[in-house]
Amino acid sequence: MKLEQIDTPAALIDIARMQKNIARMQARMNTLGVAFRPHVKTTKSIDVVRAQLAAGARGITVSTLKEAEAFFAAGVTDILYAVGIVPSKLPRALALRRQGCDLKLVVDNPTAAAALAAFGDQHGERFEAWIEIDTDGHRSGIQPEQQTLLDVGRILHENGVTVGGVMTHAGSSYELNTPDALAALAEQERAGCVRAAERLRAAGIACPAVSVGSTPTALAARDLQGVTEVRAGVYVLFDLVMRNVGVCALDDIALSVLTTVIGHQEDKGWAILDAGWMALSRDRGTSRQSHDFGYGQPCLLNGTLLPGYVVSGANQEHGILAAVADGEPAGDIAQRFPIGMKLRILPNHACATGAQFPEYHAVAADGSSTEWPRFYGW
Amino acid sequence: MKLEQIDTPAALIDIARMQKNIARMQARMNTLGVAFRPHVKTTKSIDVVRAQLAAGARGITVSTLKEAEAFFAAGVTDILYAVGIVPSKLPRALALRRQGCDLKLVVDNPTAAAALAAFGDQHGERFEAWIEIDTDGHRSGIQPEQQTLLDVGRILHENGVTVGGVMTHAGSSYELNTPDALAALAEQERAGCVRAAERLRAAGIACPAVSVGSTPTALAARDLQGVTEVRAGVYVLFDLVMRNVGVCALDDIALSVLTTVIGHQEDKGWAILDAGWMALSRDRGTSRQSHDFGYGQPCLLNGTLLPGYVVSGANQEHGILAAVADGEPAGDIAQRFPIGMKLRILPNHACATGAQFPEYHAVAADGSSTEWPRFYGW
Repeated sequence: MKLEQIDTPAALIDIARMQKNIARMQARMNTLGVAFRPHVKTTKSIDVVRAQLAAGARGITVSTLKEAEAFFAAGVTDILYAVGIVPSKLPRALALRRQGCDLKLVVDNPTAAAALAAFGDQHGERFEAWIEIDTDGHRSGIQPEQQTLLDVGRILHENGVTVGGVMTHAGSSYELNTPDALAALAEQERAGCVRAAERLRAAGIACPAVSVGSTPTALAARDLQGVTEVRAGVYVLFDLVMRNVGVCALDDIALSVLTTVIGHQEDKGWAILDAGWMALSRDRGTSRQSHDFGYGQPCLLNGTLLPGYVVSGANQEHGILAAVADGEPAGDIAQRFPIGMKLRILPNHACATGAQFPEYHAVAADGSSTEWPRFYGW
Repeated sequence: MKLEQIDTPAALIDIARMQKNIARMQARMNTLGVAFRPHVKTTKSIDVVRAQLAAGARGITVSTLKEAEAFFAAGVTDILYAVGIVPSKLPRALALRRQGCDLKLVVDNPTAAAALAAFGDQHGERFEAWIEIDTDGHRSGIQPEQQTLLDVGRILHENGVTVGGVMTHAGSSYELNTPDALAALAEQERAGCVRAAERLRAAGIACPAVSVGSTPTALAARDLQGVTEVRAGVYVLFDLVMRNVGVCALDDIALSVLTTVIGHQEDKGWAILDAGWMALSRDRGTSRQSHDFGYGQPCLLNGTLLPGYVVSGANQEHGILAAVADGEPAGDIAQRFPIGMKLRILPNHACATGAQFPEYHAVAADGSSTEWPRFYGW
């Protein structure tokens, strides 16, 4: 199907840009001598994941058991479920392992560790758990020097659960925007996670895997001594938040929302789009960054940026395209953007925007497109 | 299924609250002497829509052609597609009408009106269009006194398109929070839309329907002289934004997100939840209102409010529950909210939060639940 024939709003993936992003990340990981385990929560699309695996990724990271089930059904077996496990989710995890899925679970507290061990014992299943480490204070995990780390390690190790490794995610990297700050955080992430592994090993717990990552730290890391693998998700498509963080350029962004001009308010300088927040998502991640892109950056259908314009507002199925605040009033808005004109909007956050769509339209260099289904829910 | 057995995160609808909200709105419309056409974009669920129709609603309003197609397939025939039509969407609209759907389209400009007339002429179909009126300057529509109103009316009327009515949506009502201000806007919405109908009728164009509405103005209107029908969507579930607007209480909110405590950061006073922004949505609509509810208001599993706590942060699949900023530090966070504890989170915006889920779990008074599927996409 050609771009002009796709019903709007629609989520487009520029295949060439995506492949370039995949190749760039994989090349960095190869240079740094670590395995790469992409976080597939960004796209939830087997077509994208196949491209990541074909480029050299080893295993995947998921954010939900539904992702684990869907990608295992599609043939991926090495899966890290990177959200802390709780007892109520263990039956689904067990079912996956019994079907042959090499599913690794994550724990960061003694209660969950003990529950996992008891459940495994009860069902005769040797689970594999990775211990989550907190290296930047932004969310979950055990700090490398905490006693709890060894407590959790021992509960698992002594009660029939394999301690497969330690993992951390320096999500505070999204708040940085200079190469030096990102490199420093990448080193902090590396050092903290390696230290945690060393403490476990010193206590007699093997801990083979040392897994770190976020897109910014993965691309900024200068050395990954002691790390065995890196995880990252949004790098595969990139977005305006990552552009502001400084790890991609606008023309690296592989995801856009195809939209149609459906009206105007000429006295206000507005063109009304059929992409509102349901299509663009409510994510306003760039509002706290150096460049606020509103609800997204408009481009022509061929991808040419329209730097003087922004999606300044959004209702559920209406977006408002206007000149940027410091730009000249768009007195010619209806002539510049006539009814029926198609545009593409670069999103603030690829994970949030993609989630609004049942499928991507993957666009090849010749402008033809293929549907890549994606799923949602838990 | 009992609440305790539902995998988290999950979207719950409290059936009793929903039925009370439906009855309240329908009773007001009956008192005001107007028909009620619910906007089904809020839930996209036939089970909810059947309850609205059973209570007396006449026809539905939709925000996408997919909604029109899905609800027509489920037996609803009187459908207003309330987003301005563009030529590329006319084939799907035609297909619906040819199958017997009484689909009404919306236009607010001469270009779309002329394209609709030409398409109808080309395909031998007499379409029905309603003209969108701008009564509060917040989005789309033609102002009641503009010459364009008569231009559009004549293009339709003289070229084989039935002018079925005028419609307006005073969406700026979401920015108000007093009964008098809401009543004044409801009157402005009524008066502007009635005036537009009168101008069209004076020009010899029948314009039978005069359709107004938003949840706040529908509930605040004191008189609807000249109006034939009202539209509203979010009233069916309500949410924290509507509570701040002043048209519902916290215990009217029928939608909540069921979540599980999966970890803690005790030194920060955090409990980590498995409901992040993917489940709660990125909508932070209360951030600009009198009471900022963060990413949502926590409640116990039985619905009891936890007023000292808030979901203060959210990553994709992690939410952070903490004491409110001016509350006492939650030093007992891990004891108060142990691993595995289930909570319910009232959402900022029911339309945005519901959209993240493939189904609702509709909860009856005895705590048992039934799945009500919902759909997404375009």
